[in-house]
Amino acid sequence: MTAINLDHLSANPLLPEVKDAMIEAIRADYGNPSSQHRIGDRAAEALDAARQSVARLINSPTSKEVVFTSGGTESVNHAIKGVALAHSDRGKHIVTSNIEHNAVLRSLRRLKLLDFKVTSVPVDEYGRVNPADVAEAVTDQTILVTIMHSNNEIGTVQPIEEIAAVTRERKVIFHTDAVDSVGVIPVDVQKLGVNLLSFSSNTFYGPTGVGGLYVRRGTKVWPLLDGGVQEHNKRAGTENLLGIIGMGVAAEAALRDMDRRIAHASGLRGKLMETLPQYIDGFIFNGHPEEVLPNLVSVSIKYVEGESIVLMLDDEGIAVSTRSACAAGALQASHVLLSIGREFADAQGTLVVSFGLENTEEDVIRFLEALKGTVKTLREISPLYNGEAVNE
Amino acid sequence: MTAINLDHLSANPLLPEVKDAMIEAIRADYGNPSSQHRIGDRAAEALDAARQSVARLINSPTSKEVVFTSGGTESVNHAIKGVALAHSDRGKHIVTSNIEHNAVLRSLRRLKLLDFKVTSVPVDEYGRVNPADVAEAVTDQTILVTIMHSNNEIGTVQPIEEIAAVTRERKVIFHTDAVDSVGVIPVDVQKLGVNLLSFSSNTFYGPTGVGGLYVRRGTKVWPLLDGGVQEHNKRAGTENLLGIIGMGVAAEAALRDMDRRIAHASGLRGKLMETLPQYIDGFIFNGHPEEVLPNLVSVSIKYVEGESIVLMLDDEGIAVSTRSACAAGALQASHVLLSIGREFADAQGTLVVSFGLENTEEDVIRFLEALKGTVKTLREISPLYNGEAVNE
Repeated sequence: MTAINLDHLSANPLLPEVKDAMIEAIRADYGNPSSQHRIGDRAAEALDAARQSVARLINSPTSKEVVFTSGGTESVNHAIKGVALAHSDRGKHIVTSNIEHNAVLRSLRRLKLLDFKVTSVPVDEYGRVNPADVAEAVTDQTILVTIMHSNNEIGTVQPIEEIAAVTRERKVIFHTDAVDSVGVIPVDVQKLGVNLLSFSSNTFYGPTGVGGLYVRRGTKVWPLLDGGVQEHNKRAGTENLLGIIGMGVAAEAALRDMDRRIAHASGLRGKLMETLPQYIDGFIFNGHPEEVLPNLVSVSIKYVEGESIVLMLDDEGIAVSTRSACAAGALQASHVLLSIGREFADAQGTLVVSFGLENTEEDVIRFLEALKGTVKTLREISPLYNGEAVNE
Repeated sequence: MTAINLDHLSANPLLPEVKDAMIEAIRADYGNPSSQHRIGDRAAEALDAARQSVARLINSPTSKEVVFTSGGTESVNHAIKGVALAHSDRGKHIVTSNIEHNAVLRSLRRLKLLDFKVTSVPVDEYGRVNPADVAEAVTDQTILVTIMHSNNEIGTVQPIEEIAAVTRERKVIFHTDAVDSVGVIPVDVQKLGVNLLSFSSNTFYGPTGVGGLYVRRGTKVWPLLDGGVQEHNKRAGTENLLGIIGMGVAAEAALRDMDRRIAHASGLRGKLMETLPQYIDGFIFNGHPEEVLPNLVSVSIKYVEGESIVLMLDDEGIAVSTRSACAAGALQASHVLLSIGREFADAQGTLVVSFGLENTEEDVIRFLEALKGTVKTLREISPLYNGEAVNE
């Protein structure tokens, strides 16, 4: 039994109001929103209401610019591959950053097999992209810039508006992977000035397997899924209506409760960061000191393996993560941590703590107590540890 | 209020046991199957159990050959685009039939923009493909044959085994869109001998927005969704676990109840086809007399518009369709009906009746009574009708 969940990035539980709405929808047997008769009317209404709720969350000028997808990964693939293939006659060059999520990295790797060229700009020690680097990387062959809104391992938030100023001037389409931002911190697609923005329902306590892609009017993107005329012809296939209904309710709650949630998460984050030195030494916090998600702490702990800590804490009923669940099968060191200058060994000793609505300061203290014992045990068996870890 | 649903192809209601399982899963808050700690264990177990249930339904030799997707459309796009892009170095030619679903047609149209060539084989008056035509269409540049298992407008089932014998001999990958077959009639991927087979959960009373793709071991296909390592590296993205759980339960029920369901649907189908002449004249049944889905009747009615019938019957609380919901936005005559030799006007006067578990013979009679009045009214205002419609 897991008593304390400090790995909300991996999965958020559903909000009670999301559960209620989904259970009601299951019982009600909505039809197909595209059907020709009135069985489908309620479905079409529910779909429309959810789309409006989601549009409000990202301040999309109209709900027509919101496309429902099967999750953040589909949104990212749709945006990147869709722009690349739709604009390949103008050029085959794409600009990205060194710290993107695997959905971005692997979509770009796939496009390289189709002769696209990718330039990846570096980040500073806090994981921030310099907009001037993006400006320099853009050529007359560049058709797309894709830079994430916030990072899923270290929480750093990028200067998206400044990057959008660059792409607007150079007339290049700009996509941002905002999967870990939307519903957590304010995200306003109009203010950001992006063409495309990917997001996911579970980030804000909606169901998994459903997400959204904001597509600014006039942005030419090939659909990833061709077929029927659903989603204003941008994404074929009968909708995951139950998931979409859940996402709509979750979006409303996220907008309504955002300030309160940020205050709560920031409080826990501050508590953890202030108190950690009382429990262990020899660690480095990762990420930007201010431009950062409120619900995430990344800490590299010297002379230990993050994977070992995760397993040992799991035995004590505490769930944390070394990095995103999507990459859990992969054993390389995190490209994000290497990109911000961490040593390989420190990268391997990194924990990601992500807070959720139900967490308390007591959870933080219980985690720190367990962590203290775990780190002590692991360092005792580490051949590298000489008993004198010092904070840098 | 719709009293009688005779458009199950557009949306099937969830089975009570599917509802129960999904509601239980919503309440239980499963985690992420890919997470590193035990919160995700139950999710991973539920995912695995659903995969095994679905594998049994299609007699897949191992559940590892089953990839969960966001529905039939994604499965079809994944199969067609994934094979095309993974094998384009060997050739860029694809063989299909004249009566495929829009998901196939539009995926192929998309590939034509990437310089793929498509040969479409004709069908006979019943909508059957001749395997010899496929053999003739295959060239040394052919990398894929995609022919549907059963047709969503006329119900005709194709000679898939015979076509697979051709593709096997010519060493070409064979995909079949079995979205309207799996869960309705026996589908055995081993017996069929296909490499790829697309299917959808809602066809057998599971939720919409979830489907599957069978990928025979050794079949090289590019993922449509790149990113994390989910679905044995074949489809990235955190899973729609609730939908998948529902699909698993629906698959078990479909396998268990298949004989009973076929007998029930065939009974209603027979009743409708036998009794129709007592109510109206001037009609043609579409589809193969024997090799046909048991749950579907397609009938072209002379001197009327199908769309008008659908609207008028809807007012009487009876839901039928002119064709698939996916194409409801499109106003052309059905390419399927034109391909089997129907005149344009007859194609426009076509109704698709699709039966479901709750339908009764009384529903059929009430439909026929309503249809009789509707056809009479519409023919009275038709400039083409001379009062002497005769069955052909």
